[in-house]
Amino acid sequence: MSFTVYLSGEIHTDWRDEIKRGAQANGLDVVFTSAVTDHDASDAAGDHLGEESSSFWRDHKSSKVNAIRTKTLIEASDLVVVRFGDKYKQWNAAFDAGYCAALGKPYVTLHSEDIIHPLKEVDAAAMAWATSNEQVVEILKYVTRD
Amino acid sequence: MSFTVYLSGEIHTDWRDEIKRGAQANGLDVVFTSAVTDHDASDAAGDHLGEESSSFWRDHKSSKVNAIRTKTLIEASDLVVVRFGDKYKQWNAAFDAGYCAALGKPYVTLHSEDIIHPLKEVDAAAMAWATSNEQVVEILKYVTRD
Amino acid sequence: MSFTVYLSGEIHTDWRDEIKRGAQANGLDVVFTSAVTDHDASDAAGDHLGEESSSFWRDHKSSKVNAIRTKTLIEASDLVVVRFGDKYKQWNAAFDAGYCAALGKPYVTLHSEDIIHPLKEVDAAAMAWATSNEQVVEILKYVTRD
Amino acid sequence: MSFTVYLSGEIHTDWRDEIKRGAQANGLDVVFTSAVTDHDASDAAGDHLGEESSSFWRDHKSSKVNAIRTKTLIEASDLVVVRFGDKYKQWNAAFDAGYCAALGKPYVTLHSEDIIHPLKEVDAAAMAWATSNEQVVEILKYVTRD
Amino acid sequence: MSFTVYLSGEIHTDWRDEIKRGAQANGLDVVFTSAVTDHDASDAAGDHLGEESSSFWRDHKSSKVNAIRTKTLIEASDLVVVRFGDKYKQWNAAFDAGYCAALGKPYVTLHSEDIIHPLKEVDAAAMAWATSNEQVVEILKYVTRD
Amino acid sequence: MSFTVYLSGEIHTDWRDEIKRGAQANGLDVVFTSAVTDHDASDAAGDHLGEESSSFWRDHKSSKVNAIRTKTLIEASDLVVVRFGDKYKQWNAAFDAGYCAALGKPYVTLHSEDIIHPLKEVDAAAMAWATSNEQVVEILKYVTRD
Amino acid sequence: MSFTVYLSGEIHTDWRDEIKRGAQANGLDVVFTSAVTDHDASDAAGDHLGEESSSFWRDHKSSKVNAIRTKTLIEASDLVVVRFGDKYKQWNAAFDAGYCAALGKPYVTLHSEDIIHPLKEVDAAAMAWATSNEQVVEILKYVTRD
Amino acid sequence: MSFTVYLSGEIHTDWRDEIKRGAQANGLDVVFTSAVTDHDASDAAGDHLGEESSSFWRDHKSSKVNAIRTKTLIEASDLVVVRFGDKYKQWNAAFDAGYCAALGKPYVTLHSEDIIHPLKEVDAAAMAWATSNEQVVEILKYVTRD
Repeated sequence: MSFTVYLSGEIHTDWRDEIKRGAQANGLDVVFTSAVTDHDASDAAGDHLGEESSSFWRDHKSSKVNAIRTKTLIEASDLVVVRFGDKYKQWNAAFDAGYCAALGKPYVTLHSEDIIHPLKEVDAAAMAWATSNEQVVEILKYVTRD
Repeated sequence: MSFTVYLSGEIHTDWRDEIKRGAQANGLDVVFTSAVTDHDASDAAGDHLGEESSSFWRDHKSSKVNAIRTKTLIEASDLVVVRFGDKYKQWNAAFDAGYCAALGKPYVTLHSEDIIHPLKEVDAAAMAWATSNEQVVEILKYVTRD
Repeated sequence: MSFTVYLSGEIHTDWRDEIKRGAQANGLDVVFTSAVTDHDASDAAGDHLGEESSSFWRDHKSSKVNAIRTKTLIEASDLVVVRFGDKYKQWNAAFDAGYCAALGKPYVTLHSEDIIHPLKEVDAAAMAWATSNEQVVEILKYVTRD
Repeated sequence: MSFTVYLSGEIHTDWRDEIKRGAQANGLDVVFTSAVTDHDASDAAGDHLGEESSSFWRDHKSSKVNAIRTKTLIEASDLVVVRFGDKYKQWNAAFDAGYCAALGKPYVTLHSEDIIHPLKEVDAAAMAWATSNEQVVEILKYVTRD
Repeated sequence: MSFTVYLSGEIHTDWRDEIKRGAQANGLDVVFTSAVTDHDASDAAGDHLGEESSSFWRDHKSSKVNAIRTKTLIEASDLVVVRFGDKYKQWNAAFDAGYCAALGKPYVTLHSEDIIHPLKEVDAAAMAWATSNEQVVEILKYVTRD
Repeated sequence: MSFTVYLSGEIHTDWRDEIKRGAQANGLDVVFTSAVTDHDASDAAGDHLGEESSSFWRDHKSSKVNAIRTKTLIEASDLVVVRFGDKYKQWNAAFDAGYCAALGKPYVTLHSEDIIHPLKEVDAAAMAWATSNEQVVEILKYVTRD
Repeated sequence: MSFTVYLSGEIHTDWRDEIKRGAQANGLDVVFTSAVTDHDASDAAGDHLGEESSSFWRDHKSSKVNAIRTKTLIEASDLVVVRFGDKYKQWNAAFDAGYCAALGKPYVTLHSEDIIHPLKEVDAAAMAWATSNEQVVEILKYVTRD
Repeated sequence: MSFTVYLSGEIHTDWRDEIKRGAQANGLDVVFTSAVTDHDASDAAGDHLGEESSSFWRDHKSSKVNAIRTKTLIEASDLVVVRFGDKYKQWNAAFDAGYCAALGKPYVTLHSEDIIHPLKEVDAAAMAWATSNEQVVEILKYVTRD
């Protein structure tokens, strides 16, 4: 059985690659998608549309160009994995989770135990909470088995 | 013109009351709604359903009881104001913003200038970004004028 | 805050009345709705449309007449409480739960501990699981508080 | 004409295989999907996410992992067949039927005559009631003919 | 319990009034709506927008002006009654039934026994088939009882 | 450009074949779908599910089995052509048109000039009115051109 | 019968007032809504959120604040009247028409004969084309009559 | 990553070809769609359905035939580019933008700086504003990168 999985959230560790490798090692028929995860490119996504003097509008333009991609890919996916790392605010990850919740799109969260409390609303609408990439691979292995 | 406005996010300052007072001072026909903002009550919302040994499930149950209220009120509102304060992760606020974005429900953000960058995706889908409660009142005054 | 609550499921005990009395005792602004709970009347809901020789079609006609009411009331409610009692199959209760799940309508289940396992899919999509009418009243009290 | 058919419900007899064999014998262009029907695997679907001391939460986690698969497959299907057997509560089958009803997804029921009455609401929203696997194959043969 | 019922179809007999009188005689809390049932006025609904030399466009304009009303009222109703009389094609009645079916809006048909066969698709998606105005009143009485 | 076109309505002339031949002669990349157009088979579509003593229920069962196919094909099509012939009531054709209208699915009507008036509501929501199969082919040729 | 009508488009003539007066003179139960029609106020709607050096962002902010109001009012209306005057581009009016079309919200256009051709796509999805305010009042009178 | 992009608006310059050439030069996996851009053919799209004496109805018929194509293609696209040129009213372009906005379909605008003000509502709901074809190609390159 084939599945399309969108990987949302943290971009500073290689968790996406680990999950992809795990899926491949298990021979899973899963297509992975995500936002552009090159941080600098992502921040500059709107720069070619003209320079901005204000950082707000620079961010605004880049975020919207990124959203053309992310919105389309989230809506086309069968499952979204939302990763919250140790650092940074990662409000975009929580935003994606809320977006999925309203669409009725299943998502699972991936985060360590020490941030259970601040993530309680995000976890409450998720289909699962995983603490390791291996667990995510296990979920994919299970849900796509013949 | 009457409007229903859901106030989402930070619960440790009295920004909700300030906005309500501002709306009242201006004679606006606005009904304000929100989650239960008593932090302890909110964390304990599911406790009467039985004790849990794990903090994850305690949080889980309470978040879902809270969601019965918040989901209903967000969907019934004309506008959502999402407040991000200086402290805490506030992933629930970003989650609410994503939820609104997917529903096509207009929302405005309310936060200071120093968190523009981490909130860029949340701001990108918002109808406005305000930095003070007064600005939010101004928006309400404008959009509900006869 | 006012709320409309649809009470689905078991019709052989007076759980609906207990919840209503509890809501009233707590001064809650809750409107309760439900299917016609008079069992004989419900089974005969389509009889005036003409006699049937087959029990299947008699049931079919009555169920559809009942659905005119239940579908409308479920969709108009803010919350659905689905009660599973000790006896009978109660597939209609599970059907209502699935209906709510697909609509994104919040529901809570109400059943004793000994049927946790067969109800696991129904509970998985619920916002809460209660074991007593008092707990349901507590939930209503909490979610409608000012 | 090709069709995708989700087979929901009873997992203790080989009705799914019989229908598949019937479809194959008739050369039908039908893809069949279903939940994971290995009972033990299904009950354990969430176990790798961490042990639970309470049976409620163990069931809860497994049901949600299963729902990632079932929700996706039901929504992607053209028709759902919901089988109610002689034993067990099978509330999940009724839940799937209600889910289909709310989505406007056509489904047919498959059950013996002695449970007509308790299934009347489920049958009322179905496109057909079959009592044998052969009848289901006949339906598929008819609806997919060129 | 209050209900809004849209009365669609035949405009050459006084079936609407009979149903209204029946509802009133039974003290039902039902609001009835319908298209403009004055045949000449309905055919001329677009005439004030300018004369047309072709009967097709005259009909076209009037039908669309009528649809402003009927579409709004059908969507706002809880139940639609679709009446097929002895004469005329009444394709608009069947059109309304199909419109309801796609919206998931419950409707009942009202017609005599001799047109069962040509109406089979319309009846198949209906919640009930009535042959008399009294039966329709009975349905309303049942579905709105306290 | 490829297009999927559902051909609805009259089954007593070979208009479907004419349109298919026209499309083929023009090398159009159009897939045509339709209900089962073998009248006897269509009337008997539910017979294998058990004999009925009443003609209403026989029709009812067959119509619903047919609807499994037609509903799926209409929703999967890019355009629906609804043909009204000289004979019969053809309420199912008007029903399909109403169904399309509510879904926002484009449809064109195909009928002669003498039934303009009774079809005015059906034509009012259509994207075009054609009087010949050739005109329908012309429309397809135009809308699918590169 | 009551109706809510949103008046979109041209803000440089008093057509809104004329229609309101006409409705009042005819005793119609119609509530009229619209964007803020004070041109300067509308252009400055976002100014209190902070000064912008670029005219694009000033316009952007004001348009979004205006959209909080217009989006809500359009979605809450039963009918939208879209007025195209002699001057200015009025792309916002065409935008509102497209918005209505996608929502399935009925709208009528109001414009003179000399701009039929450039408005053909906008008129094609409208329920009527009026050339005078009196005609719009006539439509309202007709669709809301008892 | 593959993407489907609908090119809406101006038909008097070769901007569509420039964007296609740019996409090809960059090896992008993008499928481009659009309305029929042959102006005369587009104006005559409904002519084969019969002659009209009034220009309004000729335009009406052709616009609707065109809409069969454009509505389908817009809904099937991942992104819409809406081009406003120097000449003509181009209300259809603004209409398409409003259509996209209501569907939640991402679109970008393409126009020169001198029409920022009249396009402010259209730009406000867009994901980006580009002033050159090259910028559009850059956006496509970015959002489809692996």
